[in-house]
Amino acid sequence: MITALDHIAIAVPDFEAAIKRFMEDFGLEFKGTEDVAEAKTSTAFFPLPPTQIELVHPLNGEGPIAKYLEKKPGGLHHICFRSDNIVEDVERLKAKGYQFLSDAPGPGAHGCKVIFIHPKSCDGVLIEINQPAADGH
Amino acid sequence: MITALDHIAIAVPDFEAAIKRFMEDFGLEFKGTEDVAEAKTSTAFFPLPPTQIELVHPLNGEGPIAKYLEKKPGGLHHICFRSDNIVEDVERLKAKGYQFLSDAPGPGAHGCKVIFIHPKSCDGVLIEINQPAADGH
Repeated sequence: MITALDHIAIAVPDFEAAIKRFMEDFGLEFKGTEDVAEAKTSTAFFPLPPTQIELVHPLNGEGPIAKYLEKKPGGLHHICFRSDNIVEDVERLKAKGYQFLSDAPGPGAHGCKVIFIHPKSCDGVLIEINQPAADGH
Repeated sequence: MITALDHIAIAVPDFEAAIKRFMEDFGLEFKGTEDVAEAKTSTAFFPLPPTQIELVHPLNGEGPIAKYLEKKPGGLHHICFRSDNIVEDVERLKAKGYQFLSDAPGPGAHGCKVIFIHPKSCDGVLIEINQPAADGH
């Protein structure tokens, strides 16, 4: 039986820089590294609290997911970090040189405010930051 | 401050089929759907227990991650479901028509047994299944 999502794997070209990014820029706890000789892979782990898989599909056949699916059969599209102060986090990350896909957070699912970091700023990974609505929705 | 990984988003061409896959084939709890008009996107959520981000990097400059990084600057590489009986889950999924990248589970990080489902069987997403070692490592 499937009991959990064990991990989400992100391929990175600069191992040390990526570890630093996820520790310092995104504030995750760093659990350590392990080399897996059988897979010819070095791994670094960051434990996370409960999360969710979000399937995304074009609404009325248009929009950004429709464009993505014109090029690919589907796939891992983005990850999203939750923030308790999105304006402050965006300012902090902009000061570190991160580029964003829009100037300011806009509306997302469940009444969240959301913004996306440019994949060029994160080794090709599209990272969303969201802040839940004040009423918890 | 970043407080959590809110979600991992997977783009899917057939919304109903993908919801059914994650509910029935992978046994996740289905929380419901929401259309986000602003993003022109339909979304479906599956809550998950605690997980972890795993950065993966080539060991000694070779192997599957090195090949991946020859083509891309980095990126979301795979997700991994944890199983309490990997042999049984592989048999169950094979009977449903899933194709795997190897015939049987092999060694992975932390002494796990691991196997990968072919991305063609999952809308272009590379999905690993692992089973932790009996001693908990």
